[in-house]
Amino acid sequence: MPTNRQWILAARPQELITPDVLQLTESPIPPLAEGQALARVKYLSIDPTMRVWMADIPQYMPPVSLGEVMRSFGLAEVVESRHPNYKKGDNLLGLTGLQEYLLLSGDERYPVQKLPSVPFLSDINFLGTLGVNGMTAYFGLLDVGKPQAGETLVVSAAAGATGSIAGQIGKIHGCRVIGIAGSDEKCRWIKNELGFDVAINYKQLDWKQQLLAATPKGVDINFENVGGEIMEAVLDRMNLHGRVVLCGLISGYTHLAPSLSSFGRVLIKRLRVEGFIILDYASKFMDAGKQLGMWKMMGKLKDHYTIVKGVEKAPDAINMLFRGENLGKLVVEL
Amino acid sequence: MPTNRQWILAARPQELITPDVLQLTESPIPPLAEGQALARVKYLSIDPTMRVWMADIPQYMPPVSLGEVMRSFGLAEVVESRHPNYKKGDNLLGLTGLQEYLLLSGDERYPVQKLPSVPFLSDINFLGTLGVNGMTAYFGLLDVGKPQAGETLVVSAAAGATGSIAGQIGKIHGCRVIGIAGSDEKCRWIKNELGFDVAINYKQLDWKQQLLAATPKGVDINFENVGGEIMEAVLDRMNLHGRVVLCGLISGYTHLAPSLSSFGRVLIKRLRVEGFIILDYASKFMDAGKQLGMWKMMGKLKDHYTIVKGVEKAPDAINMLFRGENLGKLVVEL
Repeated sequence: MPTNRQWILAARPQELITPDVLQLTESPIPPLAEGQALARVKYLSIDPTMRVWMADIPQYMPPVSLGEVMRSFGLAEVVESRHPNYKKGDNLLGLTGLQEYLLLSGDERYPVQKLPSVPFLSDINFLGTLGVNGMTAYFGLLDVGKPQAGETLVVSAAAGATGSIAGQIGKIHGCRVIGIAGSDEKCRWIKNELGFDVAINYKQLDWKQQLLAATPKGVDINFENVGGEIMEAVLDRMNLHGRVVLCGLISGYTHLAPSLSSFGRVLIKRLRVEGFIILDYASKFMDAGKQLGMWKMMGKLKDHYTIVKGVEKAPDAINMLFRGENLGKLVVEL
Repeated sequence: MPTNRQWILAARPQELITPDVLQLTESPIPPLAEGQALARVKYLSIDPTMRVWMADIPQYMPPVSLGEVMRSFGLAEVVESRHPNYKKGDNLLGLTGLQEYLLLSGDERYPVQKLPSVPFLSDINFLGTLGVNGMTAYFGLLDVGKPQAGETLVVSAAAGATGSIAGQIGKIHGCRVIGIAGSDEKCRWIKNELGFDVAINYKQLDWKQQLLAATPKGVDINFENVGGEIMEAVLDRMNLHGRVVLCGLISGYTHLAPSLSSFGRVLIKRLRVEGFIILDYASKFMDAGKQLGMWKMMGKLKDHYTIVKGVEKAPDAINMLFRGENLGKLVVEL
């Protein structure tokens, strides 16, 4: 009888994920009952939002309860099925949780989706460029940010899974794109490989002067993933009636007190700041996926996957994200 | 020869207006040259934004320079004219400045407007309900907030010149309107006289519980004049995809450090926060004025003017505003 290793949320984290927060359990997988299917998780998606799910604070989905398998997106393959909707070999995308096997009964609260087999695209793309990150970048930039050719777009966490795609979609739409990232390596990647116009390493002392020099016409759109001091500096450069796509606030996720900002610039610059959550766009994922897939196959969207191996590494991987140790999309391969 | 008393900005304020900040000067008014006109100021409009104009910080108009007459809106009457566009008796509305007489040469950086004579409406209305405050409430609520009948609107500084009108326009559009104000007297006025559904005195210890009880269906629109802790509490009650009309942040105007807030709720609740400045709507003032005047004459818009007498009281009047000592519109009558 196979066993299933699962990461259980055992305690609420204070800052980063300490050993008491997630507990690895191992339990036998019972034989399938009629109406059940079993899928083996192949990849786990490691996302900043997981840190929010761990905290007992108001949020866009219920927080994970203590004692529950930690929530995560992932990609799984059906290995055995007694459910009419699933057959062996099906590739599934959805909230697999941080575990090796996913037991399905077809009435999941957050249903998994069957993945089409797309030539030239590997499965892992459905966790990044064609997955939650690609969708987030696509709808956030196009639907909320509404970029016009010639406008200046600033993306923070620009070498991350979502930011790197948002910046490239900005280039496709004719924007001047400035990326802010946390290392010279990341900056080289987004500038030389992804085609950002300017990349700024915010760990350099003069980064705000670099931002000033890089935005002679001000900033029309801020695709914001970070919040706090980085967001403040970008808001300082915003043009009147600029748009702030509030995608994430990662700088505040690992602290007890959220990072605070002033709404003053929003007022005097008549900015539109709009929060959005990609789940609201679920009905349009198929169309966006086709467009993203097309761009990817045409070479207009490039991506990078930072791969960590083994389910036991999942908590470390989450911390890597908050320490900025990933380039592009961070996944755990099982 | 008549003399002109003028309040000169002599120092930047730290918090409230201390005696060193504004200096009263008196100087003779020279005879008019050809092309000039002289208007006697009848009313000065006292607005929170004046405190912003005094500070040397980035803002939507240039700050007032040290040594300049302090900027303010006001209402003046032409007493002598050698300019073809002005004739004796004309009523003028605009940036008169904190002074007794306004010398005009027709090439003002911020031109004054000639006021029509409207039956049943007294001049002072053009400083409040039909002036900057009415326009701000009108465009802020209707153009930015986009209220729908049945929605819940929360207005902060609800007994102030702008908030009191915003709430009433919300009622006209069929909203459930909750006002937040700083005294029981103010609360009685907005509830009993102006028809707000609920009035909450934020100086009562349980005001957040009152807000919770008053918003069983959450909040769809926040017409925000205050910022800081009051704004945070309202954001807590916002519904998904709610709208925040960012009209003012008065809680932060008299402090060196702006009051800070978290953008977290904007993100998780997918709010749209939009700053606006009434000057952007100047081309539409005439239409709005007609509508506001109609509502006012029909008794659908009620107002109150807190009147302080004498130009020498202008600095005190500004402080009254920040101490919340005005009901409705605060003006200085000369």
